[in-house]
Amino acid sequence: MTSDHLSNTFAALADPTRRAILARLITGEASVSQLAEPFDISLPAVSKHLKVLERAGLIARGREAQWRPCRLEAGPLKDVANWVEHYRRFWTESLDRLDEYLHEVQKKGIQTGIQAKAQKGARRKNHGRK
Amino acid sequence: MTSDHLSNTFAALADPTRRAILARLITGEASVSQLAEPFDISLPAVSKHLKVLERAGLIARGREAQWRPCRLEAGPLKDVANWVEHYRRFWTESLDRLDEYLHEVQKKGIQTGIQAKAQKGARRKNHGRK
Repeated sequence: MTSDHLSNTFAALADPTRRAILARLITGEASVSQLAEPFDISLPAVSKHLKVLERAGLIARGREAQWRPCRLEAGPLKDVANWVEHYRRFWTESLDRLDEYLHEVQKKGIQTGIQAKAQKGARRKNHGRK
Repeated sequence: MTSDHLSNTFAALADPTRRAILARLITGEASVSQLAEPFDISLPAVSKHLKVLERAGLIARGREAQWRPCRLEAGPLKDVANWVEHYRRFWTESLDRLDEYLHEVQKKGIQTGIQAKAQKGARRKNHGRK
């Protein structure tokens, strides 16, 4: 594994338990046992996940001797948001293209409708003249 | 490694060479040898990285027999952006707190300045009376 900051962040986020731990910390600080509660894994396994998150700077732990509460650290997540922002135009562009296509289809549909009506009208006129 | 979609995306992004390949593809399609050019690694090593990106759905490869150009696929990146969005308030809040603190400091600075001036004025007055 590479040791650059963003790679560490992404590697730490590449696990559903670790992401669930971060999601839990949105609601506030929590102890290791509180964080372990919803998961069907051992306390040492949770501690291991917390160490990965802490090394990546995604959480910080209190220094209080007994329960050392964990809290979310937003810095690395902001870096992820900034990184992914460079690619935004790729999904907005594809949505724009879809939007353009639908407009085109709709416009053609309306035109086809108008033409059909016009032709129908012309046919009626011709029919009337006969 | 877990097999969920978002974990695969994050794992694929946890490598600076793979992120550099994606950044190159912002400018348009490229062949494997074009993608390999800026890196000091072998073609097979680049191919390996491309396979990881392809499995994560971050790139797609053309079916043209010879050069099979790679292009960026934005879907998984949009998922990353949506995921990280849930945490935005954590860094904006900390910026807000910093902003609040700076305002507070500035306000106190101004007040201290006013008090200092007032005291100076009072001292002058007192001095004038003597």
